[in-house]
Amino acid sequence: MKLKQGQKLLFIGDSITDCDRSKPDGEGLFDATGRGYVTIVNALLTSTYPELGIRVVNKGISGNTVRDLKARWETDVIAQRPDWLSIMIGINDVWRQFDVPFIKDWHVYIDEYEATLRELVQRSKPGVEGLVLMTPFYIEPNEADAMRAAMDRYGAVVKRIAEEEGALFVDTQAAFNKVLGTLYAGTLAWDRVHPTQAGHMILARAFLNAIGFDWSKMAQ
Amino acid sequence: MKLKQGQKLLFIGDSITDCDRSKPDGEGLFDATGRGYVTIVNALLTSTYPELGIRVVNKGISGNTVRDLKARWETDVIAQRPDWLSIMIGINDVWRQFDVPFIKDWHVYIDEYEATLRELVQRSKPGVEGLVLMTPFYIEPNEADAMRAAMDRYGAVVKRIAEEEGALFVDTQAAFNKVLGTLYAGTLAWDRVHPTQAGHMILARAFLNAIGFDWSKMAQ
Amino acid sequence: MKLKQGQKLLFIGDSITDCDRSKPDGEGLFDATGRGYVTIVNALLTSTYPELGIRVVNKGISGNTVRDLKARWETDVIAQRPDWLSIMIGINDVWRQFDVPFIKDWHVYIDEYEATLRELVQRSKPGVEGLVLMTPFYIEPNEADAMRAAMDRYGAVVKRIAEEEGALFVDTQAAFNKVLGTLYAGTLAWDRVHPTQAGHMILARAFLNAIGFDWSKMAQ
Amino acid sequence: MKLKQGQKLLFIGDSITDCDRSKPDGEGLFDATGRGYVTIVNALLTSTYPELGIRVVNKGISGNTVRDLKARWETDVIAQRPDWLSIMIGINDVWRQFDVPFIKDWHVYIDEYEATLRELVQRSKPGVEGLVLMTPFYIEPNEADAMRAAMDRYGAVVKRIAEEEGALFVDTQAAFNKVLGTLYAGTLAWDRVHPTQAGHMILARAFLNAIGFDWSKMAQ
Amino acid sequence: MKLKQGQKLLFIGDSITDCDRSKPDGEGLFDATGRGYVTIVNALLTSTYPELGIRVVNKGISGNTVRDLKARWETDVIAQRPDWLSIMIGINDVWRQFDVPFIKDWHVYIDEYEATLRELVQRSKPGVEGLVLMTPFYIEPNEADAMRAAMDRYGAVVKRIAEEEGALFVDTQAAFNKVLGTLYAGTLAWDRVHPTQAGHMILARAFLNAIGFDWSKMAQ
Amino acid sequence: MKLKQGQKLLFIGDSITDCDRSKPDGEGLFDATGRGYVTIVNALLTSTYPELGIRVVNKGISGNTVRDLKARWETDVIAQRPDWLSIMIGINDVWRQFDVPFIKDWHVYIDEYEATLRELVQRSKPGVEGLVLMTPFYIEPNEADAMRAAMDRYGAVVKRIAEEEGALFVDTQAAFNKVLGTLYAGTLAWDRVHPTQAGHMILARAFLNAIGFDWSKMAQ
Amino acid sequence: MKLKQGQKLLFIGDSITDCDRSKPDGEGLFDATGRGYVTIVNALLTSTYPELGIRVVNKGISGNTVRDLKARWETDVIAQRPDWLSIMIGINDVWRQFDVPFIKDWHVYIDEYEATLRELVQRSKPGVEGLVLMTPFYIEPNEADAMRAAMDRYGAVVKRIAEEEGALFVDTQAAFNKVLGTLYAGTLAWDRVHPTQAGHMILARAFLNAIGFDWSKMAQ
Amino acid sequence: MKLKQGQKLLFIGDSITDCDRSKPDGEGLFDATGRGYVTIVNALLTSTYPELGIRVVNKGISGNTVRDLKARWETDVIAQRPDWLSIMIGINDVWRQFDVPFIKDWHVYIDEYEATLRELVQRSKPGVEGLVLMTPFYIEPNEADAMRAAMDRYGAVVKRIAEEEGALFVDTQAAFNKVLGTLYAGTLAWDRVHPTQAGHMILARAFLNAIGFDWSKMAQ
Repeated sequence: MKLKQGQKLLFIGDSITDCDRSKPDGEGLFDATGRGYVTIVNALLTSTYPELGIRVVNKGISGNTVRDLKARWETDVIAQRPDWLSIMIGINDVWRQFDVPFIKDWHVYIDEYEATLRELVQRSKPGVEGLVLMTPFYIEPNEADAMRAAMDRYGAVVKRIAEEEGALFVDTQAAFNKVLGTLYAGTLAWDRVHPTQAGHMILARAFLNAIGFDWSKMAQ
Repeated sequence: MKLKQGQKLLFIGDSITDCDRSKPDGEGLFDATGRGYVTIVNALLTSTYPELGIRVVNKGISGNTVRDLKARWETDVIAQRPDWLSIMIGINDVWRQFDVPFIKDWHVYIDEYEATLRELVQRSKPGVEGLVLMTPFYIEPNEADAMRAAMDRYGAVVKRIAEEEGALFVDTQAAFNKVLGTLYAGTLAWDRVHPTQAGHMILARAFLNAIGFDWSKMAQ
Repeated sequence: MKLKQGQKLLFIGDSITDCDRSKPDGEGLFDATGRGYVTIVNALLTSTYPELGIRVVNKGISGNTVRDLKARWETDVIAQRPDWLSIMIGINDVWRQFDVPFIKDWHVYIDEYEATLRELVQRSKPGVEGLVLMTPFYIEPNEADAMRAAMDRYGAVVKRIAEEEGALFVDTQAAFNKVLGTLYAGTLAWDRVHPTQAGHMILARAFLNAIGFDWSKMAQ
Repeated sequence: MKLKQGQKLLFIGDSITDCDRSKPDGEGLFDATGRGYVTIVNALLTSTYPELGIRVVNKGISGNTVRDLKARWETDVIAQRPDWLSIMIGINDVWRQFDVPFIKDWHVYIDEYEATLRELVQRSKPGVEGLVLMTPFYIEPNEADAMRAAMDRYGAVVKRIAEEEGALFVDTQAAFNKVLGTLYAGTLAWDRVHPTQAGHMILARAFLNAIGFDWSKMAQ
Repeated sequence: MKLKQGQKLLFIGDSITDCDRSKPDGEGLFDATGRGYVTIVNALLTSTYPELGIRVVNKGISGNTVRDLKARWETDVIAQRPDWLSIMIGINDVWRQFDVPFIKDWHVYIDEYEATLRELVQRSKPGVEGLVLMTPFYIEPNEADAMRAAMDRYGAVVKRIAEEEGALFVDTQAAFNKVLGTLYAGTLAWDRVHPTQAGHMILARAFLNAIGFDWSKMAQ
Repeated sequence: MKLKQGQKLLFIGDSITDCDRSKPDGEGLFDATGRGYVTIVNALLTSTYPELGIRVVNKGISGNTVRDLKARWETDVIAQRPDWLSIMIGINDVWRQFDVPFIKDWHVYIDEYEATLRELVQRSKPGVEGLVLMTPFYIEPNEADAMRAAMDRYGAVVKRIAEEEGALFVDTQAAFNKVLGTLYAGTLAWDRVHPTQAGHMILARAFLNAIGFDWSKMAQ
Repeated sequence: MKLKQGQKLLFIGDSITDCDRSKPDGEGLFDATGRGYVTIVNALLTSTYPELGIRVVNKGISGNTVRDLKARWETDVIAQRPDWLSIMIGINDVWRQFDVPFIKDWHVYIDEYEATLRELVQRSKPGVEGLVLMTPFYIEPNEADAMRAAMDRYGAVVKRIAEEEGALFVDTQAAFNKVLGTLYAGTLAWDRVHPTQAGHMILARAFLNAIGFDWSKMAQ
Repeated sequence: MKLKQGQKLLFIGDSITDCDRSKPDGEGLFDATGRGYVTIVNALLTSTYPELGIRVVNKGISGNTVRDLKARWETDVIAQRPDWLSIMIGINDVWRQFDVPFIKDWHVYIDEYEATLRELVQRSKPGVEGLVLMTPFYIEPNEADAMRAAMDRYGAVVKRIAEEEGALFVDTQAAFNKVLGTLYAGTLAWDRVHPTQAGHMILARAFLNAIGFDWSKMAQ
C-alpha cells in the first residue's frame, strides 16, 4: 500500500468522478464523495485500512474537459494541498466531437488535450507525494468504432505523460475490455460512458491495484 | 465460489437491505438494487465473475421486522424461486423496544423472533440450493449497552438457527467489531444502525467471504 | 397518398412511439401525440394535406415489448377502430437481452416475438384498410455488434410477416444506416436507441414514403 | 441549397422561435434548440444533408420585441459570428397594442419597429453570408381584424427592408393563409399566435423553401 | 331582487364557471367558489344584500360539454336541491369542432346539444323556484367568423329553450359585444374564450341584471 | 367620474392591496394586479368605462408599514408618474403592536405614522392630479377592542391628513361597519384583516364611490 | 398523579389536537404526536415521569366536529383500548355558524352537540379508567362577542356532561381568559382559534393540572 | 425569576438551538423561534409571566462550532443588544472529531474551543445584564464512550468559564443523565444528539431553573 497514515487523496475529473458529490466540498458526511468509483475507493480504504485514516476528496464536475480543469486547477487542486492526486479526464474532450460534431468550439482536440494535461501535471508534481493518471475510456469493444479509436488515442497521450512524468498509470480501457469479452457493453453502461456500479467497481479496482491495495486483507 | 452459473440470489431484510431499491422489482436497470451492501455484492459479482451471470434481487423493505417478513414471505421469497436466499432481519425487532419503549405492540420479543425466523427458514429450505443467515447488528462497541446486549442475544438466535438448519452464517456484528477497535461508531453510521458506504462494504465483504468469493481475482 | 379523407391512423409501439404522449388518449390538443415521429407525421399530414383531415392517434407506451402489446391489444387497438394501423415493436424485446442479460424473464426471444406479432397482425387485419409494419432498429453501424445483429434478425421477422400478410413494410434500420454513413451514431441518439429530432425525422420520412406522401407539395 | 458545408445558421426572435430552447446556448444536446420551427429545420437539415454539417443556433427569447433584440444584438448575434442569420420579430410589438392597450410604454409602434429592424439588419449584413427576414404573423383569416391588419402592415415593413437590403424574404402570413382556407385558425394555434407542431411545420417549410431545400431528397 | 332570504343559488357549467373552485364542494371558506363570475356574483350578493344570506354554490367543471353535464346532473344538481339554478354550457360543445376538427367523437353537434339541454332543464324545473339560462359565447366581434357563427346558433338554442320553459335568459354574447365595440377581443380574453376579470365582471353584471340586482344600493 | 381618458391610477399599500400581484410590474396580462380590491376596481373600470382606457397599477407589498412605503416611495410611486394615487397603509403599523407586542422595533407608533404619511402625501401631491387616502381597518365590530380602538385612531390621522391636503378620503372602516351590523366579522375575514372577495368588494365599492363611479351604468 | 405505570392516554379532537400528527398512527418516532398541546403533555410526562412509561396517542383530525368524531369513534377510540381518554371538540361545530353562516348543513347546533357528545362519553366510559373532557374555546376576551358567547354555551354543555358522567373537567376557556387579562388575543392565536406554542402550553398546563401533574418535580 | 419586565433574551448555538427557526430574524410570528427548547422556554415565559413581556430571540444555526459563532458574533449578538444572553455550543466541535475523523480542518480542539468561548463571553459581558452558559451534551450514558468523555471535557471548560466570568451555569449533560437512568438514550434522540420534544423539555427545564422560573405558578 503506497498511501501513508493521515494522507489526503484527491480525485479530479468529469461526471464519472463527480457522480453527484457534494458541492463545493466533495468530502464529509453522507454521500459527500458521490456515488461512483471514488466512494468505492473510499469505502474500501476506510473499512480495510481504518488505521491509515486516508482522507478522500472528490472534485469531479460533470461535463468537464481538460480545458475546464485548467480553469479551476488553482482552487480545486493546488489550494487543497493533497498528498496524492488522481486525474481522469478526456471523455468529454472526445465525446463532443461525436455527439455535437458541428459545434467545433466545444471540441478539445488531441494537441490541446496533451499540452494542457501535461501542464497541469507538471504544475502539481512538486506539491504531491503521489500522482495517478487514469485514461479516459469508452465502453465499446469494437476498436474500429470511430469514437473508441479516438478515445484510445487520448488514452495513449495519458500513458505517455505518465511515463514522462513518473506518475502511476491506470489503463481504465484495458480494465473494461477484460469484462467486455464476457458482457455486452450495454450491461456496464447505458450510453457506453456512464458506468453502472459494476462498472465503477472496475474503475475502483484498477485504481486500487495501482496504489498497491492488498486484497488478501478482504478475505480475513 | 459457491454460486453457480445462472443462479438467482435473493436478499431480504429491512432498511439496511432496502437502501431505496426499486419497488416492487428490486432488480433491473439503474439503481434497482438500491445503494447498500446488496449493490456492492452485485457489482463485485458482475465485474469479477461476469461469466457466472449471477442474478441479484433485493427484496428488503425499510422498517421491517421478522413479523413483516412473514406477512410477505410467499410473494417476495417463495414465488421468486431463488437459488440462493440471504436473510438479515431483527434490527427493528430490537430497536423499537428502545426508541418507542412504551408502544409495546411494535416490539418483537425474542421468542416470537426465534419462532418466526425458524419457520421462515424451514419453509424456504426445500426450494433453495443455498441459504445465508446474517445477524442483525448494532454499531456500538460497548457490549454492556442495553440495546447492543439485546442485539447480541438476537444474533445468537440467528447463529443457533443457522447451525440447526445448515445455513451459512454471517456474523455482521463481529465484522463491525473488528473495525470498531480503530474507528468510532459514528464514523460508520450516524445513528449506529444505518451504515455509510464503508459500513456497507463491511457487510458485503462478510457476505462474500461466506459464499467463497475469491479476492485474489481482484488483484489481477 | 394512400390515406383517404377522414381516416384514423393509429400508431402503437414502445418509447420511440410514446415520447411522452398524453395518457390515455394519445390525441387532442397541445402535445397529445408526444414529441417523436408520430407528431412529425401528424404535423406534415395536417399542414400538407389539411383537406384530408387525417386523425392521428398515438398509443405507444415506453418500455413495451410485443408481449405487452398483446396484453392491451383489445383496448388500445381493436376498440379504437382505426382505418390505418402502424406497429413498431421489438427494441425492448431485444435490448433486455443485452442490458439485463441475467434477468431472463424479461427477455422476449425471437420465436415468441414472431408468433405474437403475427397473431396481432392477423387479429387486426380484418378491421383495417391499411397496415404498416416498421422494423425495430439499433442506431449502431457495426453489423457485427451483437445487439445490432440480433435487432437485424428481429427486423427480418417483421419483413417476413409484412410480406406474408400484405402489410406495408418500413425498414427503419435501413433508413438510419443511410445517415450513419455520414454521421456518428451518437449524433442521432445518445444511447443508440432514443433518437434526437433528426432521428425522429428519419423515422417519419420512412413512414411517409411508405404511405405515398408527396414531397413535391412541400416545395409549393 | 444555399447553405454551404460547415456553416452556422442562427435564428433570433420571440417565443415562436424560443420554444423553450436551452439558455443561454440555444444549441447542443437534447432539446437545446427548443420545440418549434428551429428544431424542425435543424432535424431536416441534419437528416437530409448530414454531409453539410450545418450548425443551428436558436437565440429566440419569449416576449421579445424588436426593442429587446436591439438590446442584446451585440451579444446574441454579432458575437456569435453566424454565417447565416434569420430574424422573425414583431408579433409582440403589435400584440401588446391589443392585449394591454392602456400600457402604452409596452407598445412598439411601426416607425420605431422599422427604424430598429433596419438598423439591426444593416449592422449585421457585413458579417454574414446570408440573411433571412421572416414576417411576423397572426393566424387569423379575417383581413379586416384590427390586429391582423396591423400585423400585415408590420409584415410589409419586413418585406420592404428585405428588398432594400437584399435579404431573403419569408412571408409567414402567406404560408399560414394557404392552410387557413381549409382549417380553422384555432386548429393551428389556440391563441392565434403560438402554433401547434403543424403550424411550426408551416414555418419551417417556408423557411426551407427560401434557402433552397430540395424536397425531392426526402422521397429517396 | 328576485332571490329571497336563505335561498341557495347553484351555478353549473364549464371552465368559465369552474375557475379553480374547490372540488367537490364548490362552496365554503377561502376561494371555494373559484375565481370567476360566480365569485363576483357571490361577493356582490354578500356585501350588498347581507341580510338575504344567499348561499352560492359552484359546480362548474373545466372542459365540460352538455353531454358531461347530463352524466352528473343527478349528483351535482338534483341532489343539491338548489332554489335557483343557473346553467351556462356549450362553449366546448362548439370549440372542439374547431380546435380538434378531426376527432369527431369529441364534438357535440347542435341537435344533441338542444335535446340534452332541454331534457336537463325540464328535469330540474319542478324542483327550483328560479332558473337562469346563460348562452355560451365567443369573444370575437366578427359575426362571419365560423366559430362565432356556430356559437351564435347554439346561443339561439338557449334562447328558444328559455322562452319555451319560462327561464330567465342571459345573452352573454350580447353583453360582450357591447364592449367589443371599444376594446379588442384580446383585451378581454387571451384565447377569446377564457375572460380576464374584466370579462368575468361583464358576465356577473349580465347575470345580476337578470335577477334584478339593484345597483343603486352600491352608491350608498 | 373624476378619472379622465388615458390616465394612470396607482395603488400602494400592504397585503390588502398586494394580493399576490405580479412583481415588480403590478400591471399587465393575467393576474398582474393581484386578487383583491385593486383588480375589482380595474375590472369595473375596464368593463364599464372601456372608452376611458384607465391604466391600473398595483404596487402593494405584503407586510408593509408606512415606514416601508417611505423606503420605496421614489421607485414605486414618484418614478411611476401616476395621474391618480391611492394609498391605504397602517394595518401592520398597528397589528405588530398586538401580535408581537414584545418586539417594539417592529411597531410604528402613531406619531411616526402621521409624520411619515404626511411627508409622503406632500411629496407626491405636485405630481398627481388626484390623490385618494383610504383608512386602515380592522374587521371587528367591538369599538372597545384594543386593536380596533387603535386602528380607529390611525384612521382619524388619515382623515385629518386628507382634509389638510385636499385628498379624497375613503373610510374603509365605516364601509365594513355597515355590513358588520348583519354579518359576523369572521364571515368577511378569517383573521379580521384579510378580506374574502366579499370584503374586497366592499373596499372597491368605497373607493369607486369616492371617485364618482356611476353605478347606474351597470344596469344598462 | 392520576395516571399509572404503563397506561395509554388517547387524545381526540379537531385541528387544535391534530397539529399535523402522523396519520393514521398518531404515535411513534419523530413528530408523530403533532406540534400542539398533546406533544407538550407527552414531553412533560416522558421527561418528568419517565418511570411511568405513559403511552400518548393523538387521534385529532383538523376540521372535525362532534358529528365527525361519532363517525370514527369505533375505529379511533374504542378499538384503540386506551386507559385514559381526553376529548376536546366543539370549535368547528360553532365556528361554521359564524364563518359560513349560509351553509347550514355544516353547522352542528347545540342540541345535536350535547346529545352526540353524551352518547360518545357513555359509550366509552366502561372501557376506560379515566376520562377528561376539555371545553372548546375562543381566544376572544369580549364575552358579548357572538361567537364567544356561543362557545361559552357549548363549554357549559361539556361541563354538565362531565359532572353527570363523573369525568375530569378542563375549562380551557377559563385558562385562556386568565392570560387574556394581560395579553391581546392576537398574541396567542392569529385567528383567535389556532394557538401559538404559548397557547398550547396553556392547554397542556390545564390538562396536566386536571390529572394531578406535580410541578414541583420540575424544579428539582 | 431573574428576568425583568421588557427584557430581551437571546439564545445562540448550533442545531439544538436552531431547530428550523426563521432566518435571519429568529423571532416573530408563527414558528419564528424554531421547534426546540428555545420555543418551549418562550411558551412558558409568555404563558406564565405574560406581564413581564420577555422578548425571546433565537440565533442558533445548524452545524455551528464556536469558530462559526466567533465569525458572526458582532452581527448576531453584539448588534442585537440583548439583556440576557444564553450560549450553548460545542457539540459539533467535538462530533466532527468522531464522525469525520480524517478531516482535521473541521475539528475544533479543546484549546481553541476554550480560548474562543472565553473571548466571546468577555466581549459580551459588558453589554448584558445576565449571561447563561449551557454545556454541550451527548445523550449517551456510558461515560467511557470516547465521544461522551470528550464532551464531558468540553463541558468542564464551560463550567470553568462560567465560574471565572460569573455566568449562570446550566449542566445539560447532568440533566439528561438523570433521565438516562430510566430511559434508553435512543428514546430521547435518534442519533444521541438531536433531542425529541421530551429531550428539548429537559433542556428548557434546566435553563428555566437556572433563571429562577417559579414552577408553582403552573399549578394555579
